[in-house]
Amino acid sequence: MSETSDKFEIETLGKSRIPSPLPLFNQPGSGFQFVTDETKVMYYSKFVDRSDPKSLWAFQAAGPREKIYFDPSKVRVGMVTCGGLCPGLNNVIRTIVMQLNYHYGVKYIFGFKYGYQGFIAKYGHDILELTPEFVKDIHYQGGTLLSSSRGPQDIEEIVDCLERRMVSILFCVGGDGTLTGAHRIAQEIKKRGLKIGVVGVPKTIDNDIRYCVKTFGFETAFAKAVESIQAAHVEAYGSPNGITLVKLMGRDSGFIAANTVLACPDVNFVLVPEVPFKLEGEAGLLTHVELLMHQKKKANRHPHAVVVVAEGAGQDLLSSTGTTDASGNVRYGDIGVFLRDKIKTYFKSKEMEINLKYIEPSYMIRSLPANPHDAIFCYYLADHAVHAAMAGKTDLMIGYWNGQFTHVPLKEVIGGRKRIDPNSDFWRQVLACTGQPHGT
Amino acid sequence: MSETSDKFEIETLGKSRIPSPLPLFNQPGSGFQFVTDETKVMYYSKFVDRSDPKSLWAFQAAGPREKIYFDPSKVRVGMVTCGGLCPGLNNVIRTIVMQLNYHYGVKYIFGFKYGYQGFIAKYGHDILELTPEFVKDIHYQGGTLLSSSRGPQDIEEIVDCLERRMVSILFCVGGDGTLTGAHRIAQEIKKRGLKIGVVGVPKTIDNDIRYCVKTFGFETAFAKAVESIQAAHVEAYGSPNGITLVKLMGRDSGFIAANTVLACPDVNFVLVPEVPFKLEGEAGLLTHVELLMHQKKKANRHPHAVVVVAEGAGQDLLSSTGTTDASGNVRYGDIGVFLRDKIKTYFKSKEMEINLKYIEPSYMIRSLPANPHDAIFCYYLADHAVHAAMAGKTDLMIGYWNGQFTHVPLKEVIGGRKRIDPNSDFWRQVLACTGQPHGT
Amino acid sequence: MSETSDKFEIETLGKSRIPSPLPLFNQPGSGFQFVTDETKVMYYSKFVDRSDPKSLWAFQAAGPREKIYFDPSKVRVGMVTCGGLCPGLNNVIRTIVMQLNYHYGVKYIFGFKYGYQGFIAKYGHDILELTPEFVKDIHYQGGTLLSSSRGPQDIEEIVDCLERRMVSILFCVGGDGTLTGAHRIAQEIKKRGLKIGVVGVPKTIDNDIRYCVKTFGFETAFAKAVESIQAAHVEAYGSPNGITLVKLMGRDSGFIAANTVLACPDVNFVLVPEVPFKLEGEAGLLTHVELLMHQKKKANRHPHAVVVVAEGAGQDLLSSTGTTDASGNVRYGDIGVFLRDKIKTYFKSKEMEINLKYIEPSYMIRSLPANPHDAIFCYYLADHAVHAAMAGKTDLMIGYWNGQFTHVPLKEVIGGRKRIDPNSDFWRQVLACTGQPHGT
Amino acid sequence: MSETSDKFEIETLGKSRIPSPLPLFNQPGSGFQFVTDETKVMYYSKFVDRSDPKSLWAFQAAGPREKIYFDPSKVRVGMVTCGGLCPGLNNVIRTIVMQLNYHYGVKYIFGFKYGYQGFIAKYGHDILELTPEFVKDIHYQGGTLLSSSRGPQDIEEIVDCLERRMVSILFCVGGDGTLTGAHRIAQEIKKRGLKIGVVGVPKTIDNDIRYCVKTFGFETAFAKAVESIQAAHVEAYGSPNGITLVKLMGRDSGFIAANTVLACPDVNFVLVPEVPFKLEGEAGLLTHVELLMHQKKKANRHPHAVVVVAEGAGQDLLSSTGTTDASGNVRYGDIGVFLRDKIKTYFKSKEMEINLKYIEPSYMIRSLPANPHDAIFCYYLADHAVHAAMAGKTDLMIGYWNGQFTHVPLKEVIGGRKRIDPNSDFWRQVLACTGQPHGT
Repeated sequence: MSETSDKFEIETLGKSRIPSPLPLFNQPGSGFQFVTDETKVMYYSKFVDRSDPKSLWAFQAAGPREKIYFDPSKVRVGMVTCGGLCPGLNNVIRTIVMQLNYHYGVKYIFGFKYGYQGFIAKYGHDILELTPEFVKDIHYQGGTLLSSSRGPQDIEEIVDCLERRMVSILFCVGGDGTLTGAHRIAQEIKKRGLKIGVVGVPKTIDNDIRYCVKTFGFETAFAKAVESIQAAHVEAYGSPNGITLVKLMGRDSGFIAANTVLACPDVNFVLVPEVPFKLEGEAGLLTHVELLMHQKKKANRHPHAVVVVAEGAGQDLLSSTGTTDASGNVRYGDIGVFLRDKIKTYFKSKEMEINLKYIEPSYMIRSLPANPHDAIFCYYLADHAVHAAMAGKTDLMIGYWNGQFTHVPLKEVIGGRKRIDPNSDFWRQVLACTGQPHGT
Repeated sequence: MSETSDKFEIETLGKSRIPSPLPLFNQPGSGFQFVTDETKVMYYSKFVDRSDPKSLWAFQAAGPREKIYFDPSKVRVGMVTCGGLCPGLNNVIRTIVMQLNYHYGVKYIFGFKYGYQGFIAKYGHDILELTPEFVKDIHYQGGTLLSSSRGPQDIEEIVDCLERRMVSILFCVGGDGTLTGAHRIAQEIKKRGLKIGVVGVPKTIDNDIRYCVKTFGFETAFAKAVESIQAAHVEAYGSPNGITLVKLMGRDSGFIAANTVLACPDVNFVLVPEVPFKLEGEAGLLTHVELLMHQKKKANRHPHAVVVVAEGAGQDLLSSTGTTDASGNVRYGDIGVFLRDKIKTYFKSKEMEINLKYIEPSYMIRSLPANPHDAIFCYYLADHAVHAAMAGKTDLMIGYWNGQFTHVPLKEVIGGRKRIDPNSDFWRQVLACTGQPHGT
Repeated sequence: MSETSDKFEIETLGKSRIPSPLPLFNQPGSGFQFVTDETKVMYYSKFVDRSDPKSLWAFQAAGPREKIYFDPSKVRVGMVTCGGLCPGLNNVIRTIVMQLNYHYGVKYIFGFKYGYQGFIAKYGHDILELTPEFVKDIHYQGGTLLSSSRGPQDIEEIVDCLERRMVSILFCVGGDGTLTGAHRIAQEIKKRGLKIGVVGVPKTIDNDIRYCVKTFGFETAFAKAVESIQAAHVEAYGSPNGITLVKLMGRDSGFIAANTVLACPDVNFVLVPEVPFKLEGEAGLLTHVELLMHQKKKANRHPHAVVVVAEGAGQDLLSSTGTTDASGNVRYGDIGVFLRDKIKTYFKSKEMEINLKYIEPSYMIRSLPANPHDAIFCYYLADHAVHAAMAGKTDLMIGYWNGQFTHVPLKEVIGGRKRIDPNSDFWRQVLACTGQPHGT
Repeated sequence: MSETSDKFEIETLGKSRIPSPLPLFNQPGSGFQFVTDETKVMYYSKFVDRSDPKSLWAFQAAGPREKIYFDPSKVRVGMVTCGGLCPGLNNVIRTIVMQLNYHYGVKYIFGFKYGYQGFIAKYGHDILELTPEFVKDIHYQGGTLLSSSRGPQDIEEIVDCLERRMVSILFCVGGDGTLTGAHRIAQEIKKRGLKIGVVGVPKTIDNDIRYCVKTFGFETAFAKAVESIQAAHVEAYGSPNGITLVKLMGRDSGFIAANTVLACPDVNFVLVPEVPFKLEGEAGLLTHVELLMHQKKKANRHPHAVVVVAEGAGQDLLSSTGTTDASGNVRYGDIGVFLRDKIKTYFKSKEMEINLKYIEPSYMIRSLPANPHDAIFCYYLADHAVHAAMAGKTDLMIGYWNGQFTHVPLKEVIGGRKRIDPNSDFWRQVLACTGQPHGT
């Protein structure tokens, strides 16, 4: 255990030689300590058998370094937000600016607008100069000051733009596609022999980025999603044989849907991408919904049901759309509308009059400002991203694992997803809440 | 002016002879005063010319009467909630029960479930016995304890049921359809020579009931609708050429949509049922949206737009569905989906790439518990309904006009709607907020 | 009734000769109509006997006039906010700026900071130039962009300042003291023969300004106050013999305290300035609290009590502090702390162990941004204030009465308060909610 | 690393022989796996040097066991909530009842009221029978269904009561004092040779329980505390030289105060129990507040300041009260009132007119229902507590560490506190937010 695996080795631009100017470390009597590159965060904290070589996996710990690589008075920093909205984007922007400016003394910070479009000449987007005064109140608003866009752009043109504008540090805030882009940018930079650091800040409202036990905006998102579940329950109860179907976010990972169940015990069925389900037949969803209504009626209780479906669930039941969106994601069929119609048809065929309502709250969720919990989490991420960047680390993302902030190489992050394990304690607890059978 | 028009004359079941048992009036030294039937509330409080005979219109004032008609110890009371959900239904139920029980001493109060279905044998619904203990915490929940349903039921069977169960007072909480039903029940009761009072409590989330300057749940509803507008604005701002379309409630009257505009100055276009609009051509909505985007671009501002549409707006643009719902309302075409598609097609034809989002928050609004403002308003309505009923008034609704609670004959209420006057100061202020031209 | 009393006659600076430039009125086909000075709003809308001469009382209706007095391209406008914070101040500032700028075309608008201090040289406060860009997002924040202060300043120096800065319209947003100041400023202006309009916008979180059936911020305030009552109830229930005392705003008028009772049926006693009460003896508050605890214990229910007191209640029980605050208001003794100690002592003397908690949420209430309801109300007030000012009206306040916005001469407003009538239907309903005896 | 330290060894009542009846594990094809007693959770997940023997510290992992100790059809379960209110108490009660009833099939569950008083005859408190029907909606309310009380009771009488009522499992929900009580109960049970399990669920709004990286209610609490900071900022800004002082919870640990700072960048000074501070002199708080006001004034910005103090901070500055509360905690002097007076006096002596406001929101925070995040956390804790108890574990608490739920022996928990380390990264980030010097 004195050694750790080199799975998560971090690239640097060169040797850090400049003493950190962070004022709190330099006060007389300060007990604060810099973090060394040798400080590690174990990948596994819970174990049965330690003979597995994976037990040596460890991340480099994030945090302020004693020596930094860039000269704060000269370094020029760029920043970009990509993909769909997520609560906390403005907190991340704000904190990066504040930490760079107030603590390191960096003066030149630029916001490229509309995601990676911002580097591409043909779009003609402005570049914003980001100052503490300019960003100081942006965290009160949802969305992103810099706007966003989906989809990749030409990597060479992006690096050309960074060179031309003499940007030495680039922060990329986004999800899988964005981080893939960031990794390619870092590779192109390396190929050209440039000294430009690329630091990713993970953003995904679905909470599906690897090596991040949670991501910013998630708490805000699922807390708001709970409101829609409560509405669903009230509506289902409000009419004879009321059924409410709620579609929530979750393309590949059903964490939001599953968490609403744990927070709000009024859900009868939850459907996530990780667990396939059938519609009809003995183990079918529709059969179980019908059964539930009959059971309640029999027990002299109000027959009603709430069904929650993540957008990526049950895609095998839909004929593929065969198209992709600007980010290159396969465009999913609309499982919400599909299920809504199937439920209607099913109960019509059974000659049972139901009152079906359909709720789809996603845009009301994504656009919120971060709640206090997420605001703090954004602060931590941005703070650590700044320290990593100033120390000359590159091609990495700030992760969060076992309660610690870490450096994660981008190449380890991309191309995979964090998903619900259907055999985990978490999923067991979700099913214990809904009462639905495993694999409905 | 010493006389008033008899337009709003109120029916009574007979002479009130029983002294009111209300404890607060009977305490020594109490200065509270009963309301007499001769106390009037003027229909017009603002005027230019008083020669119009309408200037004599006046309502009977609501409030506790010195003599009541029913013996509190014997009277049996029924209650029903009908139509769509609306914040505050449980507050109304709760207050009716509390006032009857604690202040008049009434012991037999029954809740008929699922709207007018509750009186019809074939549905087999339970009847709930409503006690203070049972209802004391229901106002914390949205929806209605009694559940609801849409649509008329056989009037004769309803009155048979009231007779059989010896119900002497029936409270009907609902909108236009419900109050029409209540009026027919009252007529059937009169035809049969029975002494059963029917008292309506106006419920409409659209705020479209005549002689009610506002209705319960409306404040809660539009305040929540404002959240969806803020989400719409953030989403529109969050991507290149972002346009968000929000569909809000408002079948015949656009009050919710219009009020969100006044509360939230981020709406660019609001479309209501009362004001027809065109899609294309010089004065067309789509033309104006495009124009707005170009103007913003030109002014070096982020091009984006928020459009709010009430569900009943622009129905002339849709081919009629030709069907009706259980309440007998013509089933409207879906103006939201229609506009969403039209906007897409329009900008595609103009080869302008837009990012269109569509938000439909209605079920998340209707199902809320009442906010404190509406909670009080429900209290007032229910309190006055109880006094009217105990005094033997019938075939009436509790209205709210010029800051006063009134008795309004049901026959005057039904068959018409309160709507936005497109030439009013209110609509002028709405247009001043959006900046859209009159009659877009 | 064709005539109305001249009680509420409004002063003007001179004849309005400039055609209103309001765009909505000047569009072809517009049906909007200007309001004439002869349009009246009746003071009484509910009556028994119309022989009282007061029945002729009427206000001038507010609204846009066909001719205005000031040349929009030249007029210079000032604005000031005074006294304690109140939700909605920023909405009022914002709307005044927006309406003046966008609809009338006024370009010179100035914000004087820190209330009337802003006109007085010795304080050295800045003057803000108010543009649409500058104020566009201020309504998301509580408080006031202009800051505020209490207390009168030298009237002559204020008018000197207005003259020197060539201000022709002054909006004063504030309560009784502020409006008194505004009236004196108007009188001094008149004495000097100047053509400067002074228009008041009523601001009082206590809702105690005359001729305003409600004031902005009040809904937001009491809705938040309700949260503190719910907390009080949970705390009282959470321990043996739990008693929670909540002190709310309400110096002279107990509307906030009384409304929380109607919205939240967990209050057992509410004490307001308008209704004196005793502490001990048969009808004393402490006796009744004790009695309630015993009754609950006896009925095998959890003994607990919630007492709500408005800050101005029971001042006769306290020895006067004999001092006044900067606004000249008599500094009240702290009835909250006084009652807290009295309750402790009383139950100690009775050897009954209680768990007493004390909540004082006022600063958390005053500082909120306006809720959507109040946001609209602020919009209306500011809109009408702008129209009145541009038409050359002066020495007036915008009132709200019988559902209409009105012009009210300042001299009629000041020096009196709107208060709860202890014999009114409102107070009866409050007592019916708490169950406390009249005059506890 | 194959071995772990035995620091956290867990007691059991005897050998578990009954197969777990949990339905989800017993479905055909279920992949869920029981947790073994050998599954460990490492104490340290971040390290530099692994030679420290502490690096072997590990907890037993919590979770459902394959064999259980108690016969679900016969076991009788008791539950008690003690100490101050905390958001989530009702969620814990609810989940314990639901899991025992629905998943294990336990029928006899009892709630002892008013904390440990509930076992003591002289208080005469009722015992509640807890059924799913009875508890199903309690999580919508703050506080605790069972009420609470402070202070220890006679341990022997408690165990007598458990014996007499044939209770075999006791859940104690509470903080340090409560868990100390639980440990003594477990010891007394052992002494008597009884087979009664005692399982603690950690409850502390201050987040100061050892071996719990966080506790339920904390997120809800500090999120609400943030509202009071925002109010403080608005108030401070709202008047000339405005200073707002906010006192928050935190007797021994300042986590709530410190977290509000990270979430809300409007705090200028935060004072916590872990970091002593001086009032006057060069490094004194008052000196720094004054300095800040002058700096802002000079920079032509609005001079104002927000100071947040945890209730246990600066106790060395106060003369000790020398008394203790019912829980045996030393009664702290009121640092809030003390500081308020000191600030007043200081600026008076400097002849600088300030506007000082004081906010103390604690009771409005403690009494809230759990937010969705805390609701889930309560669910996890209660679920794991039930599994531990049914498996015959005793004298333990459910902990949360490195993202895992654990079993922690009560004797390791009590008598110590989790506190802010003034040399930690966390405190560095807090200071970076306020800008205050270390050790102000």
